[in-house]
Amino acid sequence: MLQIALLGFGVVGNGTAEVILQNQKQIAAYCGDEVNIKYILDLRDFPEHPLGNRVVHDIKIILDDPEVTLVAEMMGGSHPAYDFTCAALKAGKHVVTSNKEVVATFGAELLDLARENHVSYLFEASVGGGIPIIRPMQTDLASNEILAVSGILNGTTNFILTKMKNEGAAFADVLKLAQQKGYAEANPAADVEGLDAARKIVILAALAFGKLLDPNKISTTGITGITQEHTALADKLGGAVKLIGHTEKVDGRVLALVSPFLVFSSNPISHVDDVYNGILVDTNMLGRAFFYGAGAGKLPTASAVVADILDILSGRSTDRRLPHWTVADEADIADVASLSCRRVYVFEGCPRCEAKAKTALKTEDSVWLCDGKFAVISSKMSATNADAAVTATGLCPVLSLPVLE
Amino acid sequence: MLQIALLGFGVVGNGTAEVILQNQKQIAAYCGDEVNIKYILDLRDFPEHPLGNRVVHDIKIILDDPEVTLVAEMMGGSHPAYDFTCAALKAGKHVVTSNKEVVATFGAELLDLARENHVSYLFEASVGGGIPIIRPMQTDLASNEILAVSGILNGTTNFILTKMKNEGAAFADVLKLAQQKGYAEANPAADVEGLDAARKIVILAALAFGKLLDPNKISTTGITGITQEHTALADKLGGAVKLIGHTEKVDGRVLALVSPFLVFSSNPISHVDDVYNGILVDTNMLGRAFFYGAGAGKLPTASAVVADILDILSGRSTDRRLPHWTVADEADIADVASLSCRRVYVFEGCPRCEAKAKTALKTEDSVWLCDGKFAVISSKMSATNADAAVTATGLCPVLSLPVLE
Repeated sequence: MLQIALLGFGVVGNGTAEVILQNQKQIAAYCGDEVNIKYILDLRDFPEHPLGNRVVHDIKIILDDPEVTLVAEMMGGSHPAYDFTCAALKAGKHVVTSNKEVVATFGAELLDLARENHVSYLFEASVGGGIPIIRPMQTDLASNEILAVSGILNGTTNFILTKMKNEGAAFADVLKLAQQKGYAEANPAADVEGLDAARKIVILAALAFGKLLDPNKISTTGITGITQEHTALADKLGGAVKLIGHTEKVDGRVLALVSPFLVFSSNPISHVDDVYNGILVDTNMLGRAFFYGAGAGKLPTASAVVADILDILSGRSTDRRLPHWTVADEADIADVASLSCRRVYVFEGCPRCEAKAKTALKTEDSVWLCDGKFAVISSKMSATNADAAVTATGLCPVLSLPVLE
Repeated sequence: MLQIALLGFGVVGNGTAEVILQNQKQIAAYCGDEVNIKYILDLRDFPEHPLGNRVVHDIKIILDDPEVTLVAEMMGGSHPAYDFTCAALKAGKHVVTSNKEVVATFGAELLDLARENHVSYLFEASVGGGIPIIRPMQTDLASNEILAVSGILNGTTNFILTKMKNEGAAFADVLKLAQQKGYAEANPAADVEGLDAARKIVILAALAFGKLLDPNKISTTGITGITQEHTALADKLGGAVKLIGHTEKVDGRVLALVSPFLVFSSNPISHVDDVYNGILVDTNMLGRAFFYGAGAGKLPTASAVVADILDILSGRSTDRRLPHWTVADEADIADVASLSCRRVYVFEGCPRCEAKAKTALKTEDSVWLCDGKFAVISSKMSATNADAAVTATGLCPVLSLPVLE
């Protein structure tokens, strides 16, 4: 019998117990032995739950039990999740987690601590919910150099943007609906202002480039400034506004940002709607790979937590295979203004203005919309250069978005 | 130094050498040691190639060299690829392969042989080219019961169908273009008649359900019967005709088929165009996951071959984790006519005919097209029941396709 402990018995913790109980036979066949949840750490009691008798309130009970070889941390928040993770690793126990805040903030240190103690620290569920992305990047794409990662990493904002586009609804109204449906928190700031996506792109950047950036310091623009007019304009241009976490290397430095992008329909990410997530990985050999699925939710996220548990208990994952991350310093980080991509600007004006804007943005790509508005899609250039060019024309854009290539 | 041998130095073999040479440093870091191609087995010589001095013509040289712990088989065809694979496994060497014909035909036996000899047999490149799908199904989805797998598994036919849809071109003309571009063979039968996709869905079915079906015996319909009218009608219905390999369990038996399906635009697979592949996996916990990328080509396929090589040389893959497949007997296989799904029928006729067809197909879902044609989308039912219902109406459909849900 393989004994494990769950830290936190909220939505994901409950889901993890459900996945383990429901797929028990298959899991035992995979691991070569049954997996048993010996303890559940939570502040609350769950007398009605079939596993209610496993609940403990003191982490020491788990740490001191040599039978428990693995703990799954699903508490959320930095503390005490970080502290319990350190203690578990130091006690020689493997740790798996769905906690993106802890991985994005302390990942480099925790991976080192795991290595020192010859145990694993896995976090598939911290990005993209149940979508396989962390392990595929580390195994299936190991033969490639990773060039860039771009993703819809937050289901709440994607639900809001999808509704705004499809139904012409206003941001505030859809946010209310999302809160009613349980997709958005009462305080939706971490979602709609982009911090949740920032934590996830920071984790993906560290996997791709080995440098862990501070998620609170990367350039992060949410969707609170996106209006029905913007989503309708994007639709007319043959695309959609999507909140994208993006990372790539620029001159050897790591560029990472979260921003609304215009995504044309030729890009598979433009078709990721509702609460789904989708992640594009650009590589030097395979080219572009795309991963799509349920980016949040009880069972999808639990599915990823249990996949990590099985990877360890079946003996596949070893501390030798943990990635090496270092905390990024100033010299490692590229200025977000250096991101080179096409940019779409929408202006009000006359055909002469259009000609002026096209010249400034070095492009022939423009289209007239209704109400005397026109859109110009620039050639590939940095934000600095594009904004300077627009300013020089004296025109004032009603919409300005980078294009996800 | 980790010594390996390549069997076959055609397109994929060349690509594998290129990936290993180009990403050498990163590969050495991953494996903890350098990877060296000690031998290349081919009938031909390659005096101009930088690795030309590694070419040998006798498999015995490789089998007898104890330094070589792994061979990558990229010869194509059943023989001598199968025979060399057996010999290498018996000699205690790991084998990785891109050869879908060998895996789909002899996979169950070769996995057993690998286990007996305590070595691995991996085949990520045999399905979906470079797309990570085999390993994610075995690791990331290990916590799930797999319910169904559906995919665009052949790039050539997807290129043809995309061109037919977007340009209104005829099948024969696009096939010629595909041959000029090198996407289709001079003899395109294996692609356009569906055998290539059949081999791949048989491999995915074995991964999902543990039973290896005979790829020559599953129901296989290619795209030679698809006309411009069909692709245009699908477009009008808000979808596309796609050649789909599909497998699911019906009453404990494995159903597998290759057929053109109508795929509505709400399904991510409908947006997989040109030579790309895309694979949907339905599971009981994660829900639906979708994997997309380059389904063929030199470097993408080589990327998957090298990922398998790294999985073994880094010590992640062990023979303990190889799947157990048994060769399916009659009792394991579900009749394809039992596939329950919606079906689209297009008829010529009057509103009375439409009413009759809707009643027969138990649906309110119909739409008038041009030229006095109408489409009826049935409720979910088996082919047997749907076809019988249509026959009873006396109407003769100009198009009849299952719908991919």
